[in-house]
Amino acid sequence: MKKLMMVYAILIATFLLFLYFYHYNESTDQSLKQMNRGLQGKIEDKYVMVNFQSGIDYWKSCLKGFEDAAKALNVSVEYRGATQYDVYEEITVLEQVIAKKPAGIAVSAINPDALVVTINKAVEAGIPVVLFDSGAPKSKAYSFLGTNNYNAGVSAAHKMAELTGLNGKLAIITLPNQLNHQDRMAGFQDTIRTSYPNLQIIAIEDGRGDQLASERIAASLLKDHPDLKGIFATEANGGVGVGNAVKNLNRLSQVKIIGFDTDKGTLDMVKNETISATLAQGTWNMGYWSLMQLLHLQKEAQKSQLPLQNAKEPLVPTYVDTGITIVTKENVDIYYAK
Amino acid sequence: MKKLMMVYAILIATFLLFLYFYHYNESTDQSLKQMNRGLQGKIEDKYVMVNFQSGIDYWKSCLKGFEDAAKALNVSVEYRGATQYDVYEEITVLEQVIAKKPAGIAVSAINPDALVVTINKAVEAGIPVVLFDSGAPKSKAYSFLGTNNYNAGVSAAHKMAELTGLNGKLAIITLPNQLNHQDRMAGFQDTIRTSYPNLQIIAIEDGRGDQLASERIAASLLKDHPDLKGIFATEANGGVGVGNAVKNLNRLSQVKIIGFDTDKGTLDMVKNETISATLAQGTWNMGYWSLMQLLHLQKEAQKSQLPLQNAKEPLVPTYVDTGITIVTKENVDIYYAK
Repeated sequence: MKKLMMVYAILIATFLLFLYFYHYNESTDQSLKQMNRGLQGKIEDKYVMVNFQSGIDYWKSCLKGFEDAAKALNVSVEYRGATQYDVYEEITVLEQVIAKKPAGIAVSAINPDALVVTINKAVEAGIPVVLFDSGAPKSKAYSFLGTNNYNAGVSAAHKMAELTGLNGKLAIITLPNQLNHQDRMAGFQDTIRTSYPNLQIIAIEDGRGDQLASERIAASLLKDHPDLKGIFATEANGGVGVGNAVKNLNRLSQVKIIGFDTDKGTLDMVKNETISATLAQGTWNMGYWSLMQLLHLQKEAQKSQLPLQNAKEPLVPTYVDTGITIVTKENVDIYYAK
Repeated sequence: MKKLMMVYAILIATFLLFLYFYHYNESTDQSLKQMNRGLQGKIEDKYVMVNFQSGIDYWKSCLKGFEDAAKALNVSVEYRGATQYDVYEEITVLEQVIAKKPAGIAVSAINPDALVVTINKAVEAGIPVVLFDSGAPKSKAYSFLGTNNYNAGVSAAHKMAELTGLNGKLAIITLPNQLNHQDRMAGFQDTIRTSYPNLQIIAIEDGRGDQLASERIAASLLKDHPDLKGIFATEANGGVGVGNAVKNLNRLSQVKIIGFDTDKGTLDMVKNETISATLAQGTWNMGYWSLMQLLHLQKEAQKSQLPLQNAKEPLVPTYVDTGITIVTKENVDIYYAK
């Protein structure tokens, strides 16, 4: 009988202990749920990044930023793009993405006008859309996140002035019909004109975005102007072409080159001092802050009475300048890793 | 003996049940911790908003954005400011804030130059700093979040063209020595000149940011130019002053007024149709995205090897255009609530 009593005592004690722990864990659950939520979406919500020439290196860091944001915010992402530099392929891809009604789309527009109708279709269907890297100002997308190309040209001009000792003849090799290149050129020209009276831009040439074409044009410029002191190439292939021309003519000590972007060809030439400097765009920022804005728009859509597309005011910042960095021999190594 | 066996059986069963639930709850805990964290900081980290004339209505929505972000991100905020329009008071307040080593500071600079030394001191001490509403471009702050005032002037010009039927004489009342007002004026002037050949800006006057001074100037303009069709006031007090002048001279049907900002005086005049339109700045966006950037900078500081201030590239977007909205009689009501 005494033994039986002891067994009952243990039984009751164990049961109380069980209740206590059960309750304790439940309250921990509750406080965890309340306190540690943070800013986040739903893992079943899919955010899609859409671009063109989807295989090139340039996009890797944009996508990394997009993915890093998705991880922090507990949402899903998908990467879709036209494989070619082809307007109609990008329109088709974007149509396919819209048909699946994703939680948000970040688009890099191959052309400022051609995608407007398709982008507007997505917005009118209530899908949050932002543009990154290449904009479409006439579209109804909520925001554009990318480089301020005019300011990039301004930075290039100041660097060129420093490299050339503030005086001498300069040339620009660019894509004269593309808006981002027009802006880079304008920022460069305006700054040279207003800030450096002893620097003179003597030629602006079309490099057609092609390495060999740019090399031929640079070679001819170098022959016509034996006293040329600097060339600004507003695009990566052009910079490498110019580098080859200057090297082949043995003029590396007299002619300073500034390129654009951070593909391997350009970085190699910065490292071996053929190109003095190149401009790196804030590509990770483009991806990361695109998703931050899309999540915010999605949350607004969920809580608002009116459809998102009828909002009377900017729901997110309308333009985000993702910044540029001047890459020289001193800091080139960190760009190989990216 | 049979009874005792049953008691043992119950005892063992209860114990197994206890173990099972204990383990089950523990794994729920774990998955909750892993899955539902979201983007967040630490509740003990304090982010501080610093401005000037801290009591005016204009800041309320900036602070609301800052607080909404803090709530979403599980961090603490504090609101500090110079009570007066006083450079030295704002420097003192900022020095006091820096001394407490907060997790980040969002500053609205009373003057683009006067705060540079103090802002740089904070950055060099490793404190993330962003500027909002009024920038200090020469400082080492990581970013500026505010209105693109040139674009605000462009929007005002297009609206003015619509209101005046694309032809006639216009005047501007502004603060000619302040950068943001110079930009608003330039955007307005450039757009009228390039897009509306039959609109003509016949006068640009200094309203000194004062309602009565602006009213006197507007009255004299209206007397000198009986055919004046529109006035753009780049600042709130000016808009109300112009409104009074036009009303007192009984010219409301001929003269269209565009003001700036959404203080109660301006909104009342929009509602009773004295002022045709005013421009609302994206103040909530300024506060919300300032804190988003500060949290990101704080996380970078915690994980990076190098001190934050030695980073070689933009850690956050360098400029965020927080957008503007045109407020008219149709949508004025939603601005009273803000």
